[in-house]
Amino acid sequence: MNIEGFLFSAVEASVKYPDRLDLGLIFSDEPCVTAGVFTTNQVKAAPVVIDIERLKEGRAQAILVNSGCANACTGEEGEKNALAISACLAETLGIPDEMVQLASTGVIGEQLDVAAFEKNITRLVKGLSSDNFDKVAEAIMTTDTRPKVACDTVKIGGRDVRIMGMAKGAGMIMPNMATMLAFVVTDAQISFPELHKSLLFGVERTFNRITVDGDTSTNDMVLVMANGRADNPWIDGDSPDDQLVFQDALETVLKDLALQIVADGEGATKTITVRVCGAKEDEEAETIARTVATSSLVKTAFFGEDANWGRIMAAVGRAGVRFYPERVDLAFGDVLIVKNGQFLGSEAEKAASEILKEKSFSICIDLKDGTGCEEVYTCDFSVDYVKINADYRS
Amino acid sequence: MNIEGFLFSAVEASVKYPDRLDLGLIFSDEPCVTAGVFTTNQVKAAPVVIDIERLKEGRAQAILVNSGCANACTGEEGEKNALAISACLAETLGIPDEMVQLASTGVIGEQLDVAAFEKNITRLVKGLSSDNFDKVAEAIMTTDTRPKVACDTVKIGGRDVRIMGMAKGAGMIMPNMATMLAFVVTDAQISFPELHKSLLFGVERTFNRITVDGDTSTNDMVLVMANGRADNPWIDGDSPDDQLVFQDALETVLKDLALQIVADGEGATKTITVRVCGAKEDEEAETIARTVATSSLVKTAFFGEDANWGRIMAAVGRAGVRFYPERVDLAFGDVLIVKNGQFLGSEAEKAASEILKEKSFSICIDLKDGTGCEEVYTCDFSVDYVKINADYRS
Repeated sequence: MNIEGFLFSAVEASVKYPDRLDLGLIFSDEPCVTAGVFTTNQVKAAPVVIDIERLKEGRAQAILVNSGCANACTGEEGEKNALAISACLAETLGIPDEMVQLASTGVIGEQLDVAAFEKNITRLVKGLSSDNFDKVAEAIMTTDTRPKVACDTVKIGGRDVRIMGMAKGAGMIMPNMATMLAFVVTDAQISFPELHKSLLFGVERTFNRITVDGDTSTNDMVLVMANGRADNPWIDGDSPDDQLVFQDALETVLKDLALQIVADGEGATKTITVRVCGAKEDEEAETIARTVATSSLVKTAFFGEDANWGRIMAAVGRAGVRFYPERVDLAFGDVLIVKNGQFLGSEAEKAASEILKEKSFSICIDLKDGTGCEEVYTCDFSVDYVKINADYRS
Repeated sequence: MNIEGFLFSAVEASVKYPDRLDLGLIFSDEPCVTAGVFTTNQVKAAPVVIDIERLKEGRAQAILVNSGCANACTGEEGEKNALAISACLAETLGIPDEMVQLASTGVIGEQLDVAAFEKNITRLVKGLSSDNFDKVAEAIMTTDTRPKVACDTVKIGGRDVRIMGMAKGAGMIMPNMATMLAFVVTDAQISFPELHKSLLFGVERTFNRITVDGDTSTNDMVLVMANGRADNPWIDGDSPDDQLVFQDALETVLKDLALQIVADGEGATKTITVRVCGAKEDEEAETIARTVATSSLVKTAFFGEDANWGRIMAAVGRAGVRFYPERVDLAFGDVLIVKNGQFLGSEAEKAASEILKEKSFSICIDLKDGTGCEEVYTCDFSVDYVKINADYRS
């Protein structure tokens, strides 16, 4: 899929390693309504600080992204370097500095090599093409084993509205590698408050519901640029129905990307949906789902294909939510293994073990205490996860 | 060390596996002032529920403990079984049922085999001896690789007061194995409120400061029994100085046990003290220390002997505490690697890497924003941790 007005380019700039795409550019031929969500980490990388400031106007025209260097914990020099690169790009593109968003992922604490960037910017801009979306998705990879892209089209006011997104994992925080980045472009005609609202809502229900190891990068960000080229009736405060249609479509794209990130989690061999229902509030269901989904013991049991309901019950119990242990039902897929807090026996366990052999499955915890319901998406915790993260920098 | 009036025994009862000590008894020849701290998990094993009820009077005379079966998630039958075993022991010892405390660790969801227990109780009681402390410490082991005992003696009012403790790890929650249990006996003459206060204070600063994988068992407990045989002046509300002396000594024993648990954490190869200072409040320092100490990424880096300060900075940043990133200093042992939020370069990193080769070391994070200071104790996260927990039940 292409979206009119958006161009993409990626080059090998040897930011850290030679012979790999590591510098990417997303460019719109006109200023876009742009919304962003950024890391909640108190330690924010230089590009994040700059982007947040620039996005106050809700407009951008280009995203410059590199892998190999996170430009985090780099102090004033790091910020100066980011601004220099941004200025060089803006000049080459003929747009104001403030219209450039920056994103970095890679090793923390090292300074960007400004000269190396500047040397490649002309080539990068020259390579802009509507067909290079996948190449940018490749350039932002670090420990990812494959690029992640997703798209969707919806009708709004009789017009086709297109949404295309790319992401990189996760699997860990940024420390040395592996920030979560996602960039979405759309031709929707939408005002900033509605775009921002749609993004916040979507991120909350997708990227904020996945967990690989519970860490948060200094560089995480999700950006969405809307150029209005679909010429749909303006989505603004007066069109809540259209806003919902757009929001749903955006959520579809974000969820697709989020699940791809989990499936490609470092060392992951399985993707698991942890569903909690019957809680007093949705929020309590989410707290429990998140506790189960991040438990190292639960995740190692998934890796071992062990229907270890005891670890799940214990994780539920320590989530900090009050419930009735004697009411809890637990199912792996459609196999009930715990009913009213009690284990149903070795036959049920055997059936549940079969479910765990799948590449992807759900577990459902029913507290039978209300209507609160939420899902969190996780992966298993493997020997390779430890190997990847223990040996990473060596 | 022995403490007059306390007897110990352990036998092979084949609770789950043959040919290993798995049933232990601690007995005092007179009723003891007894205080306990129990798991905060909402899912509480049957023995925990019974003990909490019985300890309302603050008195006990015996602790019966088994490994191999946690008696958790076992419903009414589980409680009935625990009460039956307790009744059998009380009758054999000639003491009231209510003077028996019960502790279990092992597989969740399986019922205790009451007959197997009853068959061994006479033998267990016959074996009581002041010399068998270490045998009980062995009987409570599950995934522990070695028994854990500690002792201390202090002078109170000119009299020697002795404290002896034993513990089992941790390393995980109970799921199938590995609740944290600790039992302490002392000849201190102390009233219940002072004993309870000393225990709460000590547990907070020791067992609650260690982390292996962040999980909490359904069966965790720490019990302390005081028989008064030291004949020291009563420690009660009128003797705050003596209470502090006792409290310090108890904390010394608990900390010794806690550090042994961390060092024996599942798959652990290193013990790390995470110290945070310069926080606005002690509580904030603790929050940050705990976030760093439980980060899978930080712990895998420790395993890899990688001075990965970036992962530590990122963990500090996501702890939910406000601070000034540009002020943070980070040291591995006595090697400063980050100053005012910035990396000091590869020479510092090389020196820090040497520290990481040690079996035991400290890291210190200074926020330079106040006087709040706390420590948390952790271990590294190894390939063996995953292997142990993925393969556990097979």
